[in-house]
Amino acid sequence: MDARHPQPAEVPAPALTLPGCPLCDADGGHLVVRLPVCRVIRADEPGFPALYRVVLNDHVAEWSDVSDADQADVMRVVNTVERVLRELLHPTKINLAALGNVVPHVHWHVIARFDWDSHFPAPIWAQPQRAVEPGQLSVVSQLLPRVDDVLRQRLLPS
Amino acid sequence: MDARHPQPAEVPAPALTLPGCPLCDADGGHLVVRLPVCRVIRADEPGFPALYRVVLNDHVAEWSDVSDADQADVMRVVNTVERVLRELLHPTKINLAALGNVVPHVHWHVIARFDWDSHFPAPIWAQPQRAVEPGQLSVVSQLLPRVDDVLRQRLLPS
Repeated sequence: MDARHPQPAEVPAPALTLPGCPLCDADGGHLVVRLPVCRVIRADEPGFPALYRVVLNDHVAEWSDVSDADQADVMRVVNTVERVLRELLHPTKINLAALGNVVPHVHWHVIARFDWDSHFPAPIWAQPQRAVEPGQLSVVSQLLPRVDDVLRQRLLPS
Repeated sequence: MDARHPQPAEVPAPALTLPGCPLCDADGGHLVVRLPVCRVIRADEPGFPALYRVVLNDHVAEWSDVSDADQADVMRVVNTVERVLRELLHPTKINLAALGNVVPHVHWHVIARFDWDSHFPAPIWAQPQRAVEPGQLSVVSQLLPRVDDVLRQRLLPS
């Protein structure tokens, strides 16, 4: 075997990308960790500081078209994000969603919801229910660098 | 071994239920198929005839508290519902979501979305974008008994 010419199995397959897709052309937010199958980004959505997304690296529109192995890998990451948000932020509830009507490239929203947030208990896409005290948002925002660090510790190989 | 007294391993564990929880006290909609770990129901939501839910039988609030084995089983069912909706209804997009802010008992929404529906491309919880032609909804509704049949064929052991 020639070490200069690795076997095909050693060469990672190039990601399937669609030029013009916002999640193929860019990370889609503040990159927390890039993994072989997917990446975790923080969305910086106004009013919802703890809105993370687990974005499939390949351009695939529907969840059921993702291979079993990649689905398992993405779900392992979604679980880790959910657990870290629960441990560090103690939200009232976690919301998970893969919609993709506007950007049909598989991405899971993992959102820490609080009973004081602008929309709770409605989904974040509904009409707001109340104004939010900026101090409450700021308490959450200040914890996010720590959330990002713990996510990297748990998700990156040691 | 006494056949009248099966070993503990042969006795299914009773479901974890919380009296007063709407998804512990009732199926939560039109029951399509009941499986050991979860059930599939059709929600009969106005404007969204093809809104199915995969409901965990046990009362667990957060996805990351569901065991790996049960998560895999629920995701297999979510995938099957998604695939059958795609095959029979040809929606513009599938939306998946596990929110549970109002009923904190794990249930996945599996929603066939159409570019003509009242909210597309917004999530179904957002403000409506347009009125819908009743004839379009009725075309989808007429196909649902067939969707339910195919779901039972694919999900129940033969």
